[in-house]
Order: sequence, then structure tokens, then C-alpha cells
Amino acid sequence: MTLNDNFDKLQNSYLFKRIGEKVANYKTQNPEADIVRLGIGDVTLPLAKPVIKAMEKAVAEMGAAETFRGYEDGNGYDFLKEKVVRYYGTKGVTLDISEVFMSDGAKSDVGNVLDIFGQVTALIPDPVYPAYVDTNIMRGNKVAYFAGSAENGFLPLPTDELCGDIIYLCSPNNPTGSVYTKEQLKAWVDFANAKGAIILFDAAYEAFVEGDDLPTSIYQIDGAERCAIEFCSLSKTAGFTGTRCGWTIVPKACGEGLLNARWARRQSTKFNGVPYVVQRGAEAVFAEDGGLCDEVKSNIAYYKENAKIIMAALDELGISYVGGKHSPYIWLKTPEELSWEYFDTLLEQYNIVGTPGEGFGSAGEGYFRLTAFGSRENTIKAMDRLTNK
Amino acid sequence: MTLNDNFDKLQNSYLFKRIGEKVANYKTQNPEADIVRLGIGDVTLPLAKPVIKAMEKAVAEMGAAETFRGYEDGNGYDFLKEKVVRYYGTKGVTLDISEVFMSDGAKSDVGNVLDIFGQVTALIPDPVYPAYVDTNIMRGNKVAYFAGSAENGFLPLPTDELCGDIIYLCSPNNPTGSVYTKEQLKAWVDFANAKGAIILFDAAYEAFVEGDDLPTSIYQIDGAERCAIEFCSLSKTAGFTGTRCGWTIVPKACGEGLLNARWARRQSTKFNGVPYVVQRGAEAVFAEDGGLCDEVKSNIAYYKENAKIIMAALDELGISYVGGKHSPYIWLKTPEELSWEYFDTLLEQYNIVGTPGEGFGSAGEGYFRLTAFGSRENTIKAMDRLTNK
Repeated sequence: MTLNDNFDKLQNSYLFKRIGEKVANYKTQNPEADIVRLGIGDVTLPLAKPVIKAMEKAVAEMGAAETFRGYEDGNGYDFLKEKVVRYYGTKGVTLDISEVFMSDGAKSDVGNVLDIFGQVTALIPDPVYPAYVDTNIMRGNKVAYFAGSAENGFLPLPTDELCGDIIYLCSPNNPTGSVYTKEQLKAWVDFANAKGAIILFDAAYEAFVEGDDLPTSIYQIDGAERCAIEFCSLSKTAGFTGTRCGWTIVPKACGEGLLNARWARRQSTKFNGVPYVVQRGAEAVFAEDGGLCDEVKSNIAYYKENAKIIMAALDELGISYVGGKHSPYIWLKTPEELSWEYFDTLLEQYNIVGTPGEGFGSAGEGYFRLTAFGSRENTIKAMDRLTNK
Repeated sequence: MTLNDNFDKLQNSYLFKRIGEKVANYKTQNPEADIVRLGIGDVTLPLAKPVIKAMEKAVAEMGAAETFRGYEDGNGYDFLKEKVVRYYGTKGVTLDISEVFMSDGAKSDVGNVLDIFGQVTALIPDPVYPAYVDTNIMRGNKVAYFAGSAENGFLPLPTDELCGDIIYLCSPNNPTGSVYTKEQLKAWVDFANAKGAIILFDAAYEAFVEGDDLPTSIYQIDGAERCAIEFCSLSKTAGFTGTRCGWTIVPKACGEGLLNARWARRQSTKFNGVPYVVQRGAEAVFAEDGGLCDEVKSNIAYYKENAKIIMAALDELGISYVGGKHSPYIWLKTPEELSWEYFDTLLEQYNIVGTPGEGFGSAGEGYFRLTAFGSRENTIKAMDRLTNK
């Protein structure tokens, strides 16, 4: 039996699994503890009413012969892809419907996209969402890092020494919550086009950006259609973490015009599409004007208010941070040296669960991620504990 | 940019895409034609009432804060995995819940499972579901075939010359509808255990097997837990082709005890689970006694009656075939020499769409697949045309 030996090079434990085990262990020893989870980036608000209504209708359709739906072609129904095209229109980005591929979420496609590349060197930011690194290790790719730091505001830019075939960017960033400006993204796009590299742009948090100055899609940058694949998801935008729907954009011009057909071939061979009921729910996320519907916007506003509460507490404590304004994530400098130590302190002294920065890479050591996805009540409770109110 | 060159070795057009193009082309030239589709294996009956009810309830839960569900761990909710364990219990197979991984369908996992293997030689039957071959080519694996034929009833057995690391078996078979006996499957299991190979067993059509004599899971064969991964799906069992749910079984003992943890790691890194609403629908497929619920059984019976109608027509025409009894597929010897020629004849003279055997591999040349998944009305109409009634 020939196994994929690259699995042996993976770190033992996936970050959130390790956190889960630590919390479970603490719970066993302290069964009465009222633990507030501001760790994993899962949402807490229910699906918006228009989404529920659309899914109810779709379920009924699946129960009647005249309206039943079986296989679709694997890239998503036109009714939904057209909404995505219009959504990008509101950003000033023109897409063709054949450039949109519906997915069951950004995580799957961010990993699966490696299928269409050969053995590559991946340039990956540090700190970073662990799946970027793990999926490259599994495939036997080389990984080189470029580091975020307090000095660059956790928004590292390309340098001459960087050399690789694919480049991961995530903005608004997970875990740091920082957002590239258009000028900064332009530097990356120019770099990629000059080097013949492909940018894998994770836009899963784009809906949290306020105002029109900061980019919410890499295609707002000239030349990006030639070098960038963009991943997006309704998980954070519309609470789809347990409903599963997102999309991947592969422009026709991307990668010398080769990548769109290759991704289509990959998907038609290894994916059978998003459930019809879910696609109808996803359709209802969008409003008539092409943007997000009011109920979805108001849920995002709710989480952003939570972020403000967290930021106010950190300000009071004199703890420095980035993120929080255009992102559900707040990335703070830990008062203690090591981020796993701070994790234990928060868990044991305040019964708050967060995510140690070190879990996102060595440049995350000394930092810590809190999320605004908790309930209002829990967020206030946790921050009151932290500020000893 | 380093692309995966293996894509260039893929055949130009995925089988069903080519059929779709041919039919669309014919439709353009003959807009009035009343075409009956007995080609692609898609179901036509709506979801069973208990499934619809369960999904309605789950949608409502997703709309209320107290019952909302976000991420789950990626391998499926226990409520559903327990049903799968009980279902296997009715087959006399004992599984641990940690051996069950819920998926969005067999197609995804049959392709994705290659992630946990290194560069292997895949032994693949011919004729065969095209995705087995294509996913191996994409990964740069070597492919060796073992051929079905009229002589072996399209149930090829292992021979001393066969040499490979992974072995694909599909029973009831797609495309031929033939079913291995327990003795025949035992020969494969013994072969795999002797050679240290892993069997990838596609059981997507197991619910169509009648009686207790023929195996519906490879784990009904002694020793299979050491050498076999089984894929199953509710697509054909319960009409989930547009709803997307299946499972993969990786026994703890499989592959010297190494594969279960490796698959779990793959899934936690590259998959975020099946939608909660879909998992609740899937739960309702099963009855209290552990088997399938009555409504799902009656839908299967409906398709099997269609198969009888097709078989009766072929008997009348003196056309020989296998399958149809324990399978929704009927695999017939074409009256004309080439199966794509017969495709054109059926399309142009009878306005019936089927699937040319050659599309499933060179050993399928001279054969043709019809499916029982049409409506009763269309199935009767097509067979009346064929028998000139």
C-alpha cells in the first residue's frame, strides 16, 4: 500500500481541534464553569428570514414531481450565479457567468484548487488560516512564508526575494482582521503578473468592510483578472457555516487563459454541486439592487457592534490590537509572552475561549484572536470579566 | 505558472457533457422532437414525504437562535451517523460510528480519497464510471484495467497478472447493472489482502439488490474491513441527486490501521460537512427498524418496475442484456456494431437518449446503457417506440 507520506509532515493536531480538546478537558475538571467562546469563527445568529423563506419554498419544490430538481451541472444554477455577477457589479467588477463556480464553501475550494496546479512553491502569509499550509503540505508542495508584523500592520507586501508560483492573500485577513488598501493590493497584483504567479485571494470576510475606499474584491485592481482566483463564502456574510455555500471566481483571462477550463474540468469530475435548497437560500441573501438584503446587512451590523465592545474593552485595558473595524476579528498583542499561555489564562481565569496567534504560524506568537461572532450577551459578559467589571 | 499537466492527458469531453451536446444539437435541428431521456442516471421522483417533513423542520430550526446550527466537525452529526451504523447492522455489518464519514455524495469522495494515497497504480474495471479513471489521471497515477465481457457476465475476477495498489469495484455495477456474488467478492477481498492492496468499493446502487443472497456491502465479506473503503450515496437510494448526501466507510482496521485517521485529517482540512438541513433529510430516509423507510422503498420499487418494462421490450426484440434485476441499469448488446452509432440511431429514429457503452471504456464498445430512472410514462413511451407499438 502506497500512502501519501506528506501527511506525516502535517502538525499533529489541527488548531481548532487542539482548542476543543483543551476546553473539553477544562470543562471536565470544572463542570460548573460558564465558558464564553470567542475562539472559532462560527456565527451565532440564525439565518435571515428571506433565506429561511426561500429554503422553505425550495424544500416544498423538492417534494413535488413538477418542481423536483436532480443533478445540476456542478457549477451552480444560473439564478444564483447571476446574483453573484450582479453583486460584483455593485463593486464595479464585471464578470461573465462562466467565471463563477458555486461551491460548498471557501474551505473546500481553497484546498481543491491545488488539483489544477502541478508541484508548486506556495507563498503563504504568516500568521495565516491553517488550511492554506496544510493543504499544500498534503500535496507535497514547497511552502515559503512572508511575515506579518506590528511594523507592517500585518499587511506584508511583496519583496524582491519572494519567489513562488502561487500566492495566498486573505483580506480582510483571518486571523488579524487587517485589510489591504487598493494600492497595497496593486503591488501584489503587479508582482504576480511580473513573476507569472497566481494569487489565491480569500475574500470570505469582504462583507465586513465599511465604506468604498478599501477593496472587497481583488478584481477591483487592474490586471487582477489575469493573475487571481478569488474565493468567497456566505458562511460569515450570511451565517451559512452550517448551510454551506460559497463561490470561486476564475476569470477567463486568468493564467494565460488556461485556468477557467481546467477548474471547470476539475469540478465536473470531482464535485456534484451545491444542494438546490441551499442555492435557493443563497439567492435570497441578495437584494434587488444587487447588494446584500437588509436582514443580512443587519446581522453583519450586529457582529460589528460586538467588535466595538471588544475593542472598547481592550482600549480600556491598554492592550493594542489591529482589526475589528472592517472585520469580525480582533488581533491583540498578548500581555503575556506566549499566546498559548494567554489562552490558558483567559480560559482558566476568565472562562473565555479565544484563539492563540501561534496556532496561525510562528509570526502569530505573542498575539491572540478574538471574534465578534458571539452573542451580544456573551460578548458583553466576556469583556466585563476581562475588565473586572 | 506550473500547471498540473496531467489534465492534458484527460479525454476532451466528459461523457455526459458529450451526450448533452449531441442532444442539444439534435434539439436545435428538430425543435418539435419529443425526446425521452434514459441516459444519465438521474432520478425523477420527488423526495419522499418523511424527508421533506424533516427538511422543513430543519429549515425552521435554522431560523431560530435556540436551534440554529453552525459548523459541525465535518464528519456528520451523530444522529445521522448512528442511522448509518444501524443500517449496516441490518446487513449484518458492525461498524463503529467513527468509521462513518458523511459526505456530499459518492462522486466527491471517490475522487478525494486519492489525496490519502501516494502515486499509485489503480486497477479499474472496464467498462466503468468515468470519474474513477479521470481522477486517477488528474493525480498522475498509473491506471491498469481489468475487462468485463459477455463471457464473465461483466463481473471480472482477479487474476495473477493483475498488479496495483488500489482496486475499484462497483456492485451493483455502473454501467452494467451486474452484481458480484459473495463468493466473487471474497475472491477480490482475498486478493487485496494477499497483495496489500486497498479496494475502493462503490456501493451507490446497493439499495436495488433484491433478497439476501447478493452482497450489499463489501463488509459482508470476511476480511474486507482490513482492505476496503466503501462509498455510498443517497442519490439513487432516496433521490438525493440534487440534495447531496452520502457516506464513506473507512474501518479502523483498514490499511494496517492507518487509513481512518488519515481520511479524518483530510476531511477536517478540506471539507466543512454536509448542510444541517440535508443531514436531517437524510436521517428521515431510514426507518425505525434500521432499514429504509416505506416511502423510499416504494420509490425504488417504482424504478424497478420501469426496469422490468425495459427488459420486457428488449426480450421482445431479442436483444440480450445484463442488469435490470438488482439495478436501475440495463446493459444491452447493441444491434449495430458501434455504441455511438446506436446512440445516434436511438436519438434520431426513436428520440430516445441512452448512454453508449464506449463512453465507459473500450470494453463497453458494442454495448449500451439504459436507465430505469425515467418516469413510468416516458419509460413506456420509449419502449413502445422501440418495439414499434
